[in-house]
Amino acid sequence: MHSENPPPLASNDSRHERGLRALAEIDGEGGQKVVDALADIAPDFARYLVEFPFGDIYSRPGLATRDREIATIAALTALGHSAPQLEVHIQAGLNVGLSREEIVEVIMQMAVYSGFPTALNGLFAAKRVFAESSCETSHAK
Amino acid sequence: MHSENPPPLASNDSRHERGLRALAEIDGEGGQKVVDALADIAPDFARYLVEFPFGDIYSRPGLATRDREIATIAALTALGHSAPQLEVHIQAGLNVGLSREEIVEVIMQMAVYSGFPTALNGLFAAKRVFAESSCETSHAK
Amino acid sequence: MHSENPPPLASNDSRHERGLRALAEIDGEGGQKVVDALADIAPDFARYLVEFPFGDIYSRPGLATRDREIATIAALTALGHSAPQLEVHIQAGLNVGLSREEIVEVIMQMAVYSGFPTALNGLFAAKRVFAESSCETSHAK
Amino acid sequence: MHSENPPPLASNDSRHERGLRALAEIDGEGGQKVVDALADIAPDFARYLVEFPFGDIYSRPGLATRDREIATIAALTALGHSAPQLEVHIQAGLNVGLSREEIVEVIMQMAVYSGFPTALNGLFAAKRVFAESSCETSHAK
Amino acid sequence: MHSENPPPLASNDSRHERGLRALAEIDGEGGQKVVDALADIAPDFARYLVEFPFGDIYSRPGLATRDREIATIAALTALGHSAPQLEVHIQAGLNVGLSREEIVEVIMQMAVYSGFPTALNGLFAAKRVFAESSCETSHAK
Amino acid sequence: MHSENPPPLASNDSRHERGLRALAEIDGEGGQKVVDALADIAPDFARYLVEFPFGDIYSRPGLATRDREIATIAALTALGHSAPQLEVHIQAGLNVGLSREEIVEVIMQMAVYSGFPTALNGLFAAKRVFAESSCETSHAK
Repeated sequence: MHSENPPPLASNDSRHERGLRALAEIDGEGGQKVVDALADIAPDFARYLVEFPFGDIYSRPGLATRDREIATIAALTALGHSAPQLEVHIQAGLNVGLSREEIVEVIMQMAVYSGFPTALNGLFAAKRVFAESSCETSHAK
Repeated sequence: MHSENPPPLASNDSRHERGLRALAEIDGEGGQKVVDALADIAPDFARYLVEFPFGDIYSRPGLATRDREIATIAALTALGHSAPQLEVHIQAGLNVGLSREEIVEVIMQMAVYSGFPTALNGLFAAKRVFAESSCETSHAK
Repeated sequence: MHSENPPPLASNDSRHERGLRALAEIDGEGGQKVVDALADIAPDFARYLVEFPFGDIYSRPGLATRDREIATIAALTALGHSAPQLEVHIQAGLNVGLSREEIVEVIMQMAVYSGFPTALNGLFAAKRVFAESSCETSHAK
Repeated sequence: MHSENPPPLASNDSRHERGLRALAEIDGEGGQKVVDALADIAPDFARYLVEFPFGDIYSRPGLATRDREIATIAALTALGHSAPQLEVHIQAGLNVGLSREEIVEVIMQMAVYSGFPTALNGLFAAKRVFAESSCETSHAK
Repeated sequence: MHSENPPPLASNDSRHERGLRALAEIDGEGGQKVVDALADIAPDFARYLVEFPFGDIYSRPGLATRDREIATIAALTALGHSAPQLEVHIQAGLNVGLSREEIVEVIMQMAVYSGFPTALNGLFAAKRVFAESSCETSHAK
Repeated sequence: MHSENPPPLASNDSRHERGLRALAEIDGEGGQKVVDALADIAPDFARYLVEFPFGDIYSRPGLATRDREIATIAALTALGHSAPQLEVHIQAGLNVGLSREEIVEVIMQMAVYSGFPTALNGLFAAKRVFAESSCETSHAK
């Protein structure tokens, strides 16, 4: 459940396959939902999303996947304009081994760099994701 | 030189002393230069800078200092409007144990979240900081 | 329905009349709804909106109205904070001769300049506008 | 109801008490609601919110509270990504003595500095706050 | 030197004349330099700059010119991407009656809404403007 | 010199070759300089820059290269934080067939969507690029 390292790269592995694997590992269902939602409006964009962010960037060695999610949660909180993607990556952070506490710390710290309103909106996004995540856990019992 | 954990908190430790210690450990000379530059225009702001970001936030347990710098470098690269502060925190990342490679990976990843121009400008900031840092290292021999 | 050129300027044409004509041609009902919504809170702002963006800028020769909508859709997608105005201008793009495909291409391209989340949110805005637009077309039969 | 000056500072007054007083005076119920909403996700952040923005910044002499709200409404309108906080501060502006007309003027002016879409979204936020505020006034009769 | 009110509006006063008067009063030489710098690249834009921001917005009754500069300094500090325009408006603030202390307070407050880096860069802009302004004052003796 | 259409896609053409061709056609020397500047800090990022923006996006049919540059110039002017990249794309706009007048119109229009300061800074970027471009033309004689 916890992954410190990016998925291993077979030398003749295609970017697309590598991207799909990374997307599934990191974003779980959230990533697939985005890909599906693009099918009728911009299917090629779904392919780019799999291949560049996930097949190229998240699959690189040199930074643990857990650390990559710290960076993404920080950036999306700071930018403040993309709540749906922030929610997907808060869930992704949980998927790859960040604790709830660590995620909350990252978001709180953004008060210093992009202001209190962005940190507040980030914390409320975390609250929604954690609530849904707890819900699923208790249903699964 | 490498610190995975925030400085220990003595219970009767003042925010200001704690902040000065965290500032010195994390930002090194860069932090003190900013504090000095504020002396004649807004000395109270220098105090807030020591106390809130460093005495409150960076001194919190719950997230390693190294992880906090990943978050800060990501956010400042993504926001794209604060090159001097980004340079201070790239140096801070090196001070608290991030490798050059890890810093470059964080910045490159921002191409996905805030666009290629912010990542490019972040990489050129890293290039300046690394060059100066190498220079100091060789002078120190 | 397709207009490569801004409306001709009669020399003694008032900015306000010219702006109303451009607003009607470009934004259609969407523009008038915005003007109406301002009536009780800031009626002078409705006048400025007609006169500066539409009476001055969109009425200038030197750039085709179609090209102006490419610029506006690109900017609103990249800024990422104004979904309602982006929707109005995606419809405006259709009104002045951009194809759905061209609009999707402009929005997808923003992944490079402002990141994948802004492009994704732009594509979902286009999906909503195109769905409503198809609906109206089939009702009109 | 109208306050030109920040609350007086007793020399041995704690930041937290001073912050709570300023928060109550300025944001009224809106501020307390935010503090309450943080209780289960990040209670320490609620404390920072009381202490730094309100205990430190808004409690400073040197700028009237009314003038501080002009600055905040302007900034939140211009940034364009934090509608809930903008609404809280439009109400805060009314609480500390700005007239509806003055608030509308500040927001309209942002069309010049951050573009018409941010000004439009700010005006619609003001419309919502004013409507609710009128409602409460008439219920109170 | 201090102006609480916008210039009086003669009913048959043209927007352009009114704008030039407001520009001269508020921005002083800084405004004229910008207009001159536009002469060879976009002379019509110089005209719009005089007419819309200054002839329309700053000339409106309903908000004192001093209050308008608080709003502008706040917004430009918070946006963080337009240092030259921020400097012009810090000087404009001094021209229309804000004290240095009030300007510094507005900028410091932005740490709360757009983060410490934007406030720091705003304070350094103020430092540059105040230094030049002191210099001119002592030369004028 | 003027290209209404993206380069033709040979079916077995690699993304990298296609990207290099598009980069050379669109950005000219400016693009190669950026790639070279990345060689020692992040050579893989140079590869991504060639492959995703140029090999994938700019090489797509469905929008003329000229129209793509309108979108890019608009977005970079509006974002306001990436002057070096804006200059590269103003030159790119000239390379692919936009007239100086059209580029100036796109930038001016951004006053409506992201405010006058971003439009002013964009116009001054255009002034620098046009001056250098004229210089080269006269040297070439």
